[in-house]
Parts: sequence; C-alpha cells; structure tokens
Amino acid sequence: MDKLTMTETIVGVKLAKDLSWESMASDLGMSPVWLTSACLGMNSAPPDKAAAIAEYLGLGPDVAKALEAFPTKVWEQAVPTDPLIYRLYEIVGVYGDTLKEVIQEKFGDGIMSAIDFSMEVDKIEDPKGDRVLLTMNGKFLPYKSW
Amino acid sequence: MDKLTMTETIVGVKLAKDLSWESMASDLGMSPVWLTSACLGMNSAPPDKAAAIAEYLGLGPDVAKALEAFPTKVWEQAVPTDPLIYRLYEIVGVYGDTLKEVIQEKFGDGIMSAIDFSMEVDKIEDPKGDRVLLTMNGKFLPYKSW
Amino acid sequence: MDKLTMTETIVGVKLAKDLSWESMASDLGMSPVWLTSACLGMNSAPPDKAAAIAEYLGLGPDVAKALEAFPTKVWEQAVPTDPLIYRLYEIVGVYGDTLKEVIQEKFGDGIMSAIDFSMEVDKIEDPKGDRVLLTMNGKFLPYKSW
Amino acid sequence: MDKLTMTETIVGVKLAKDLSWESMASDLGMSPVWLTSACLGMNSAPPDKAAAIAEYLGLGPDVAKALEAFPTKVWEQAVPTDPLIYRLYEIVGVYGDTLKEVIQEKFGDGIMSAIDFSMEVDKIEDPKGDRVLLTMNGKFLPYKSW
Amino acid sequence: MDKLTMTETIVGVKLAKDLSWESMASDLGMSPVWLTSACLGMNSAPPDKAAAIAEYLGLGPDVAKALEAFPTKVWEQAVPTDPLIYRLYEIVGVYGDTLKEVIQEKFGDGIMSAIDFSMEVDKIEDPKGDRVLLTMNGKFLPYKSW
Amino acid sequence: MDKLTMTETIVGVKLAKDLSWESMASDLGMSPVWLTSACLGMNSAPPDKAAAIAEYLGLGPDVAKALEAFPTKVWEQAVPTDPLIYRLYEIVGVYGDTLKEVIQEKFGDGIMSAIDFSMEVDKIEDPKGDRVLLTMNGKFLPYKSW
Amino acid sequence: MDKLTMTETIVGVKLAKDLSWESMASDLGMSPVWLTSACLGMNSAPPDKAAAIAEYLGLGPDVAKALEAFPTKVWEQAVPTDPLIYRLYEIVGVYGDTLKEVIQEKFGDGIMSAIDFSMEVDKIEDPKGDRVLLTMNGKFLPYKSW
Amino acid sequence: MDKLTMTETIVGVKLAKDLSWESMASDLGMSPVWLTSACLGMNSAPPDKAAAIAEYLGLGPDVAKALEAFPTKVWEQAVPTDPLIYRLYEIVGVYGDTLKEVIQEKFGDGIMSAIDFSMEVDKIEDPKGDRVLLTMNGKFLPYKSW
Amino acid sequence: MDKLTMTETIVGVKLAKDLSWESMASDLGMSPVWLTSACLGMNSAPPDKAAAIAEYLGLGPDVAKALEAFPTKVWEQAVPTDPLIYRLYEIVGVYGDTLKEVIQEKFGDGIMSAIDFSMEVDKIEDPKGDRVLLTMNGKFLPYKSW
Amino acid sequence: MDKLTMTETIVGVKLAKDLSWESMASDLGMSPVWLTSACLGMNSAPPDKAAAIAEYLGLGPDVAKALEAFPTKVWEQAVPTDPLIYRLYEIVGVYGDTLKEVIQEKFGDGIMSAIDFSMEVDKIEDPKGDRVLLTMNGKFLPYKSW
Repeated sequence: MDKLTMTETIVGVKLAKDLSWESMASDLGMSPVWLTSACLGMNSAPPDKAAAIAEYLGLGPDVAKALEAFPTKVWEQAVPTDPLIYRLYEIVGVYGDTLKEVIQEKFGDGIMSAIDFSMEVDKIEDPKGDRVLLTMNGKFLPYKSW
Repeated sequence: MDKLTMTETIVGVKLAKDLSWESMASDLGMSPVWLTSACLGMNSAPPDKAAAIAEYLGLGPDVAKALEAFPTKVWEQAVPTDPLIYRLYEIVGVYGDTLKEVIQEKFGDGIMSAIDFSMEVDKIEDPKGDRVLLTMNGKFLPYKSW
Repeated sequence: MDKLTMTETIVGVKLAKDLSWESMASDLGMSPVWLTSACLGMNSAPPDKAAAIAEYLGLGPDVAKALEAFPTKVWEQAVPTDPLIYRLYEIVGVYGDTLKEVIQEKFGDGIMSAIDFSMEVDKIEDPKGDRVLLTMNGKFLPYKSW
Repeated sequence: MDKLTMTETIVGVKLAKDLSWESMASDLGMSPVWLTSACLGMNSAPPDKAAAIAEYLGLGPDVAKALEAFPTKVWEQAVPTDPLIYRLYEIVGVYGDTLKEVIQEKFGDGIMSAIDFSMEVDKIEDPKGDRVLLTMNGKFLPYKSW
Repeated sequence: MDKLTMTETIVGVKLAKDLSWESMASDLGMSPVWLTSACLGMNSAPPDKAAAIAEYLGLGPDVAKALEAFPTKVWEQAVPTDPLIYRLYEIVGVYGDTLKEVIQEKFGDGIMSAIDFSMEVDKIEDPKGDRVLLTMNGKFLPYKSW
Repeated sequence: MDKLTMTETIVGVKLAKDLSWESMASDLGMSPVWLTSACLGMNSAPPDKAAAIAEYLGLGPDVAKALEAFPTKVWEQAVPTDPLIYRLYEIVGVYGDTLKEVIQEKFGDGIMSAIDFSMEVDKIEDPKGDRVLLTMNGKFLPYKSW
Repeated sequence: MDKLTMTETIVGVKLAKDLSWESMASDLGMSPVWLTSACLGMNSAPPDKAAAIAEYLGLGPDVAKALEAFPTKVWEQAVPTDPLIYRLYEIVGVYGDTLKEVIQEKFGDGIMSAIDFSMEVDKIEDPKGDRVLLTMNGKFLPYKSW
Repeated sequence: MDKLTMTETIVGVKLAKDLSWESMASDLGMSPVWLTSACLGMNSAPPDKAAAIAEYLGLGPDVAKALEAFPTKVWEQAVPTDPLIYRLYEIVGVYGDTLKEVIQEKFGDGIMSAIDFSMEVDKIEDPKGDRVLLTMNGKFLPYKSW
Repeated sequence: MDKLTMTETIVGVKLAKDLSWESMASDLGMSPVWLTSACLGMNSAPPDKAAAIAEYLGLGPDVAKALEAFPTKVWEQAVPTDPLIYRLYEIVGVYGDTLKEVIQEKFGDGIMSAIDFSMEVDKIEDPKGDRVLLTMNGKFLPYKSW
Repeated sequence: MDKLTMTETIVGVKLAKDLSWESMASDLGMSPVWLTSACLGMNSAPPDKAAAIAEYLGLGPDVAKALEAFPTKVWEQAVPTDPLIYRLYEIVGVYGDTLKEVIQEKFGDGIMSAIDFSMEVDKIEDPKGDRVLLTMNGKFLPYKSW
C-alpha cells in the first residue's frame, strides 16, 4: 500500500467514525501535528506508533507498514496558493532576514533544524477574536569549519 | 531617507556601538523580532517607537521618519536559498497541509493572520545541543459567507 | 463526495433545470458571488446554507456535506490566461502600487482582508455599452507592533 | 524628463508640502485613484490635467510633459509579494472563475475592460474595524464573431 | 458535451468527410479563422451560427450547445514551442515596443482590443516562395482619465 | 556607439524636432514599422538607409554605424505586461492553434517566416470607434524531408 | 490514429523485428535523422515516404496517414534534463553568441533556418575514444528592410 | 583584468582595425569558432595562444592573462530570445529525442561530450540561397557501471 | 516492459523477499549505488549484469531487457523538495564556486565527468551521531582549444 | 567591509602573491575546500582562523572581521549553467532518489546534514585520464516523532 492510498484509507475511516486529529492524538498519546503529518504521508512512523495508529482505527498491517515507510516529501508549487498556507509562506518572506539576525545573534552562525524538529498548535481564546499559537522547536545546528 | 539607507545607517551604528538587537529591544521595551524587522525595513514603527529607536541610537528625525514609513514588502526569490531561511520554507512545504488540517479542525474554516501577528525567538539550553523555540501568534480570521 | 464531484453535480442540475446563479441566489437570499464561489468549491458553506442549497437543487446530504467542507484553494497558473480573469490580474499589476498609496493614506499601514471580505457584481446599462460594476468590501487589518 | 524622475519629483514635493493624494485630488477635481496612478507613472494625463497637476504642485512644464507621456506599464513579479497587493492577487485567484460565471451570466460572453475603466476607494467606518470599499467600473466588451 | 469532446467530434467528422475549414467557412458564410477558432473551442458561437455549423456537419443539438458555451481560454506554456506559433510569439517580442510606438503615435494612449477583434489569413502566390498575409483588425480603446 | 545610446540619441532629436515616426518614414520612403524598429535597435539598417536616417536627423556617422550593426534581440519577460503588447501576446495564445490549422491547410506543413517578414499599421476611421489594422506579411517556409 | 499511437506502433514493430533506424533508413533511401524524427512524430512525411515507411514495417494506411499529419511540436521542459540532450542545450548556451558572431560575419544579418534544415550523425572511430560528428545544414535567411 | 573588460578591449581593437574573426583566426592558425569563443570570454586560452592573440592585436600581457583565466560560463535566459540563437535551441527541442535515438543506436548508452568538443561554421554557396553548415565534433562518453 | 513497470516489479519482489539493495549488491558483486540506480531506471545495465539481476530476483528476460534499455533521464523539479535530496542541491549551491576554484586549481580548466563517474555511500559510526560518507569519483575532462 | 569586498581583496592579494588555495590551506592547517569557501564568503570563520588567514595574507583586522561575519548564502540560478557546477547538479538529479534509497536503507528515515558537514577534493592520477575524488562527510540526522 502506497502513502496515497494509506492517507485516503485513514481519512475515510476518520470521517466515517467522526474522529478528530486532536482526539486521536490525545487517545494515542501523540502530538496532533505529528500524527496528522504521519497520516497525511509527510512523516514516517516508528513501528510501535504505526501499529498503534492502525489498531486504533481498526485498520490492518498494510496500513501500519505504509505508515512506517520513509516518504519522499514533494510539494508542488514554489509559491503555495491556499490562503492559510500562503500566510505561512508570507511570514517566511517578510520575517526571514529578521529571524536570521535574531537567531544567529543568539546562537552563532548556524540554522534551526527542520529534521530534529517538533511543532504544536494551540488556541488562545480571546473576546476580540481567538488567536492561533504556533510553536516550533528545532535543534540549533552550528556551521563547522574544518 | 529611504528604508535602504535607514537600515544601513542603523546597522552601521549598531556595529560601531557593538549593540545587539536583543539588548536594544530589552532597553527599549520592545520585542527583538519586531524591532529587528522594523530596523530592516520590513515593518513600519508607530511615531513614538520610531522616535525612541532613533534617540536610543543617537540618530536624527530623518531616521525616525523612515522608520514610520509604510514599507513595500518585497522578497526576491520564490524559493529562498539561505539555509536558515530555506528550512523555514521547507517547514511550510512539509507541514502546510498538516497545519491546515489541525488549525481548521480547531478553529473552523479560516486562516491565521500574518498581519495581526507577533513572533518571538527563545533559546532552550540543552546539553545535547541547544534548541530554537519559535513562537508565532496570529489572530484567527474566519471566512465569511454573504 | 469531494469538491470536484460536488461542483459537477451542481452544475449538471443547474443546466438541466436551466437555472442561473442569480436566480438561485435571489431565491435563497444569498449573494450571487458567494453562492457561485461555494458551488465552484472555492468557499465553504455554513451548515444551514449548505442544506438550503442542496435542498433547493433537489440534491442529497452528501452534496450539503461537500459544500460544508473546508476547501484547499489552489489555482494553477501564476499568470491567468482567460481574458476575463487576466484583465483582473492586469488591474492588480497596473494599479497595485496606486491602491497601496491610496488605501494606506486613508487607513494607515495595513491591508484589506481577503478573508473577512465580500464582493458584488452589478450591471450598469449604458447606450454606449453596458458597464460592469465590481464592488469589493474587505475589513482593514492594521499591522501591529509588539 | 522620464516617468521615474517625474514620480520622484512629485512625491518629493508632496512630502515637503505635506499633501495627501486625497486632498490634491479633491482640490483638482480628479479621482484620487486616477491621480495617484498618473503621478506614479502608470497612466498618462490629458494635457489640461497634466498642466493643472504641475501648476498645483508648483512644478514646471517638463513635469506636465512627463505626465502626458504614454507609459510602458511594467510590473516586475508574476506573483506580487507586498501583502496589500498580494491580497488583491489572491482575490483574483480565488474568485476568478466565480467572476467569470457571474459576469458572463449577466452580460454574455465577453470581458470587463481594464482600459475603459475607473476605480474608487472608500472607507466604511465600523466599530468592529473599518472596512475598505473598492469599486471597479469597466465597460463590458462582448466577443464578436465574423 | 464539453468543449474538448465537441472539438474531437467536429474534427472527426471533418476528417471523415474530407472537409477543409476553408470550404466549410465559405459554404457557411463565415470567416475561416473565426470558424476554426470556434470549432477548436476558443470562441463561443452565437446560437444561429452554432446551429448552422452543427447542421452542416450532420451533428446534433448537443454540439450546437457546446459551440454556444462560453469558453475558458487557457494556453499551457508561457513560451509556445511549436515553430509556427513560436514565430508569432517572436514577432510580439521583437516588434512589441515598435508597435506600441507606431499605434500610439497614430491613435493616442490606448490599445488594440483583442476582444472586439477579427483576423484573416490570405495566400499571396509568389514564384520566389508563397507568402502568408495575416490581417488583424481590432478596435482601438483609448485609456480614460476620471 | 552601442544600440542603446543610438536609440536615446535618435529619440532625443525626434522629440526636440517634434517629428513623428510616420512623417520621418514618409519623407525617407521607408515603412514606419521598419523605421521605428531599426531606430529602437531591434533591426539593422542597410548602409544606404542608415546613412539616410542619420543625415535626415542631422546626426553623425557613428549613429549611421550603430544603425547598421546587427542587433542581439533580447526581450526581458516571457509574458509581457504592457497592455498593448500583452493583447498581441494574448492573440497568439488564443488563436495560435487556429492559425496553425488555417495556414497549414492552405500552405502545407511549414511556418510563416518572422525573418523574411514585413508589417504595416493602418487606421480605419469608424464613428463607433477607430480600428487598428495590423498586416503581417511573411514568406511561407515548408518543412523539408531528407 | 494520433502521433503518439503511431510512434508506439512503429517502435513496437521495430523492437519485434529487431530493426535499427539506420538499417531502415538505408533500405528506404532516407536519412536516419529525418526518418527517426518522422517516426517519433516531430516531422510530417510526404505521402510517398509515409506509404513506404508503413509498407516496410508491414503496417496499414492509418500509420501512413498519421505519418503524413502535420505535428504540433511540443517539448515539455525549458531546460532539458537527459544528459545527452542537455549537452546540446549547453552548447547553445556556451557558444550561442559565438555562433552569432561567426555566422553573421560570414553571411550578414540573418539566421540559419531550422525549417529548411537537415542534419546527419556520423561516427569517427578513434583509438582514444570514438567521436560523434553532428552536421547541421540550414538555409541562411537574411533579415529584410521594407 | 576581468573577462568582461578583456572582451570589450578586444572587440574595440577589432573594430578599430577593421578585422574579422575569420581573418584573425586564419592569420593565427586557430579555428574561428574557438577564437571567437575565447575572445568573448566563454573559453580559456592556453598560455601560448593567449600570448599570440594579444600580440596580434597589439595588446598587453594583462589581456593575455585574462584570456588564460578559466571562465565561469553563465547564460542568462533559460529560453534564449535572439532569433539566430533561438533556432539552435529549437533544433535541440525538436530533434533532441531523435538525436538520442540515433547516437545511442550507433554508439551505445552515453553522450556526446560538450567539453572534449570542437565546432566549425562553413558557407555553402547556393543560387537558391546560401546555406550554413555547422559541424560539431564531440568525443563519445559511454556510461559506466561499477 | 518499460522502465517504470520494471522498477515497480523489482521493488515489489525486493519488498516481498525482504531484500536490501546492500545485500543484493553484495551477493551480485556490484556497487549498491549503481545497482539501485539501474533498478530505479536511471542507468542502463550491461547485458550480463542485467541477466544476473533478473535471475537473482527470479524475474524473466523482459525485466533483463528493460534493465538493458538506455534510459531517458528526466527529473521533474528544478529545485528538489525532498529534504534529503534538497540538502545535496544546497551543497551544490553553497559550494559550487568553491569546488570550481579548488578542482580547476588542481587540474586546470575543465570539469569532473558525471558520465565516467561512480559513487559510494558509507556509514561512519560515531557516538555523537553516525555520519554519512559520500564519495564521488569522476574522470577529469579538460577543455580543449582547436 | 562586506563579504564582496573581502573576497575581492583576498583574491587580489592571492593573485599578486601567486598563491594557491591549496598552499594557503596547507600552511594554515585548514582544509582547502573550507578555506576557499570562507574566502569566497559562503562560510564564516571562527575568530582565530579569521585572524590567521588575514595575517597570512598581510591584510588588516577589517578583513578578519568580514571573514567572521555570518553570510547570507544566496545563489542566483535555480539551474546552474557553468558546466563544472551543472555536472554536480546533474548528479543530484540523476542519483537523488538512488541516494535516498541507499542512505535511508543504511541509516533509517532522515537526511545527511549540509551544516554539520565537510568536503575534500583529491586527485587520482591515472594514465587514461586523472580522476577527481570528491568526498562529502555529513552527520546523519534522523527524523523524530513527537
């Protein structure tokens, strides 16, 4: 089973059982962002987590196997069009040089890893309009000389 | 004075006085990310903050005026090349659909604003390698029907 | 039912029953632009409106469900080719900086929201050639400092 | 005098005299959008209007001549980056097919002209946040057969 | 019946009956360029012409209906590759600024409409090699001020 | 003298003497389109025509030499933005396949040359709006087999 | 039968009969480059050659008809990736301006036709490594003035 | 002296002395294509050839040094626009797959080198129009397995 | 059997038999990188190696034939998105000019062949994190003059 | 002193003193690849190494400061054109999926870091043509789940 079929299968069951990523993640003791990303096929799951997800959804070992597979991460448009995703792209464009200044001033020459990395989404209720809190946590990797 | 000259002037003084964005921000009671962004010319400063920044650096009213000006925010490459900035772009590519799922499940159909928005950078010390904590806080804007 | 099938189904019934977007919108008490956009799959409908549209067309709850789903808004060409749509793109290119000047002079540094937004199309009859009146109404979102 | 120098000269005087496009337009009996567009070099001015603008600003006949010149309208990025302008581009992407449906249902096969065209910007005050009202008015041009 | 199927149907009959666009156009009293364009799905036909074309080819009302439908005009490559079409693109690149100079000197600031437009192809026999005569006829649209 | 300086020199004299391309072409017995194209640096002039143009404008042999030089024809944007030029590009996009059908039906497999080629612009006065008549005349080049 | 099916049919027979383009071309008295190009669908064959090719391969008149059809020549990537084809592209990039200098010095302002054109591939045996000899032969087309 | 200055210097002397690439190459015992390419800065010259070229033109050792320098070969447009160069690009597009078939049938899997490579331009006089003969000669490089 | 089916077949058997590229390569006496590349369809195999691979996997002569076929090497995105592959692209971007300096200083003007080329991947175990050792070995090809 | 001036200064001294990157690196006890990369401005040098390089070249503390500065790594073309650099890009295109298979089979899901990374260039003398040995050494970074 390839990743595409795996995602369609999982999303189908999720709709049929009226589950949310949040409740699944909470029941399984995983982060909603990571769980969603693995189910959409953009991250691989370690064998025990893959088995737990498949079992939770009542799906077979072929789904678990597909969750374990290492994905080829492809996105199709250099500039994303969906407004929610574009706003994130815009933040990278507007604040990219700023983040480079602030991070490298704090840590030295290097980068924030996108591999040794986790992310959370929270909701801050606010009478003037709720707010999205997006927290990224990545290991700092210093450049080396040799 | 245009934004480009303003940035060169500010960065010149900052280097000469051996200041950091962090210390400037702390002394001025502003966020380092926002302050850096305003000084790099990618955000406008309200008149009082613009005056405070210019005064702090020993610069004149033309710099304050330039900080107040509304910038045209242009970035030059659809896919950024600097590794630190590219990793942020990669996160948008890899996790874009995931964030759409998780945010819209939590909030309904809509987006996280990149305008009514703030961001902080923190350092988590860790013996296995320090970590960058990037926190984004944006107002949720629901789509409307009419 | 995905959005694509939903649109094909709705457009099929609309043709068979010889309806217009305008008459549908008028009967349902909705705006023609918004209704069309929801039926083409580029906006989600609140549950009550989704149900009303489906019922009006004699279609089932799967269509209503599909109307409610949050769309991923993708357009395929950076520069559109259809002449009617290109002219709108051209207006953005020719008048973009002008609108930035005029709007920001009137409102301060910020943007017109494309999310908290509505639009109407009207016809002005004119013996020298009828005119299209396109009215956009979007919330002004000021940039913030922090 | 080329259009670039003309714009720099006009904007310089406008800043020095602390004028707004709105007040200039009102004093001269022109639309703010059109006036701004002509002063930014993206539209040509008829001789009488060119002379009136130059005289109002205390500028010479070379500026009037430059306002009269027919511009080559070039914009540099297929996808604009400035957030205010990008939102307009996004509206074209999200609502392009919708506008095609609604306009052609109302008028027949054809387009809204971007040449025989005018546009206005208004402010609607609203305690929940002021709103931008953008009104476009373009002649409908029907396709012809031959 | 969509435009694609319509074109395939018409081209199939044309081949089977060994017709040429030229003879069809002559028999039907239409221009070969326009007729071809309508049959290839890049222009809509008025109801009477649509009916005449379908009847001439011995095709049913679904083909007539499809000929009447308003097309979305999409071309897939910014720079065309077929040599015949590329040469036309090259003419626009090489002579674009020249035509702007010559047309605007003759007519004032404005454009040649591509909507209120017709085109003919003729053959000039020449012993040194026949020549293609391409005649475009478009309404001049002057820019307006307001 | 390079082509760029040559064009600036010629356009400067043309403005100073208040000449039009049309009158220059008429006095010199050349076509306005070709003359403009040579003066804008997109075609080379044979020595006698180069000398005649320079003499007519009261310019020296360096201008004549520059008119004779073989240009490298570069245009900078795959999709032109100026509305007058874009409409020509749009005609190639909308009618490209149609012209291929009609020309190749008439002439066989081959192309219309853009090198052995000439073009004229005429004005058709019309009370409902003057019309631009653009006539292209190119040698047909048949593909060969070998 | 369209060109794609035609190519698949011809290549299938060629593989089944273990033929080479070279031997086919030699038996048929045609050039290997042209024959291959016609069979891959990038050139049309005159009726007699089309018939001869089809007969040689034991294929029917539909294949001959498809060989005769005038192709739309489309290639899909602006920069080719296959190493053999990329090296040709690189030669155009590295030597383009050089060839322009050398050809135009020898022939005057004009181009080498890619339509009235033929090409041959030969093998030069060499103990240090065989060499490819690629010979292009195109009619020189001078620019004209008018 | 960088390559750009070197080319301007050489071309300046060449024009002043009214030399041609052909006569220079003939006098110096070099190929016109290679000599032009080295003088345009797209190939490096061995020290003895660099010295000979500089001496021939009456230029100093800095020009010889610049001819010896290893160039970074950059071309600016993925799809070239100058018609002479574009035709070469078109040949690669139209005949790329054909050449791959014919070369690899003759030589096995591999490529024609663009590095161990030479090229000549000849003129074939013909009363129906002279022809350009372009001969490329590149070492065949077989792919290896390991 | 085309390359795509060949790869799917081979990968299917590899998964079913739980083989690794490493063990296959070791058993067959081939390099893992080359073997994988041939099985993914990006290199052709000599007949004896093609037969050995097919036999090892228990597959028939059609697979061997497909392994022997000369591939057209196409990759679809100018800038790859998968993080593992992007890092290699980034190394080319960051170190490209450096490698040019260092290689050409050592070898003279020329390139490292990507055709007469091999590559190995090794693992260096390290308590602070294992390291990937990537070794590329390509023939140096000097530019020639002629 | 910015990175560009720094590179020009260093390269100027290197040429004047007739140094090679190799000898500089050997004398300074650094790797030639890293040293070149730092001097070309694509890596920052730690303070002690920056001071040593500047002193070795007889340059002042402003050069040392510039070597220490954290670079913004920008490369200008998505697809590089220089043949030496393009071949590296081609290797990434041809072998990208292969390397992904082989590395991830050996190490698990993850990437080779381009930050915690070093590279060496060696020359293997060979009578049939010397060979370039390029060795990349990067830390393996496993993806994490959370």
